[in-house]
Amino acid sequence: MIEIRKAVESDKPAIWQIIREVIAPGDTYVFDPDASEAEMMEYWFTPDKYNYVALSDGELVGTFWLRANQPGLGSHVGNAAYMVAPAAKGKGVGKTMAEYSLEEAKRIGFASMQFNFVVKTNVVAVKLWQSVGFEIIGEIPNAIRHKTNGLTNAYIMYREL
Amino acid sequence: MIEIRKAVESDKPAIWQIIREVIAPGDTYVFDPDASEAEMMEYWFTPDKYNYVALSDGELVGTFWLRANQPGLGSHVGNAAYMVAPAAKGKGVGKTMAEYSLEEAKRIGFASMQFNFVVKTNVVAVKLWQSVGFEIIGEIPNAIRHKTNGLTNAYIMYREL
Repeated sequence: MIEIRKAVESDKPAIWQIIREVIAPGDTYVFDPDASEAEMMEYWFTPDKYNYVALSDGELVGTFWLRANQPGLGSHVGNAAYMVAPAAKGKGVGKTMAEYSLEEAKRIGFASMQFNFVVKTNVVAVKLWQSVGFEIIGEIPNAIRHKTNGLTNAYIMYREL
Repeated sequence: MIEIRKAVESDKPAIWQIIREVIAPGDTYVFDPDASEAEMMEYWFTPDKYNYVALSDGELVGTFWLRANQPGLGSHVGNAAYMVAPAAKGKGVGKTMAEYSLEEAKRIGFASMQFNFVVKTNVVAVKLWQSVGFEIIGEIPNAIRHKTNGLTNAYIMYREL
């Protein structure tokens, strides 16, 4: 049973452990695999973000945030990022966060969601987003210096809420 | 004759005048047409940006910046934004800034350029970017609450350098 709730200050060390493990292989996120805790936590918790965590049997196994993708006249389009603890893969954490986040984004008032950077070879993520109604609306050539595949494209994905 | 140089502190009041006039109609940029000087100048001059101005007969008629579109493993893709003083339209300021900025982006070390948000009805901008080699690689539905046209799509444009 996976529970989602808002992130609180005391979640931060566990969130950093997830981020650190997720970015280390350099294959799904653009962040420097050697980025520092200070750098990543500042980015993950900028004031424009709504932050959440996923728990499995009381253990923190996932983290995501929602925010507006653009300011002003573009602020009705939401944006989000998600990370699942590598040890908790295959338990449906990603899917649970995905579904919860889309409902939550609608509650916040977003009309649609746009992902700016889904690495094309991250097939699990691409399929997950397609399974909950996202479409590929663009493809950026050579968007990431992927640690194992070299220069790799990224998709831009979108769905109405 | 249009001259391009790096922006300096004393250019800021003239840059704000251009920004203010360009965002007021709410038809080309997502920024709130009523955004304050402090808010816009903070955004235009964040430390990750390389800022430039265009001068015509000594008068400041345009402003643009370059930056990395993503951190870390995506930092080889550049991004930019450009504004031309409405009174200086038709003098080739946009084209001069476009060409200069692509050379400059290459000098800085970017491998390509990506624009995340070119309003589809901003035909002058779309044509300008296509004329210097950009391609439309994506289209965001209902991306901007355009002040005259209502919900309007935006293009994502890209070119190698």
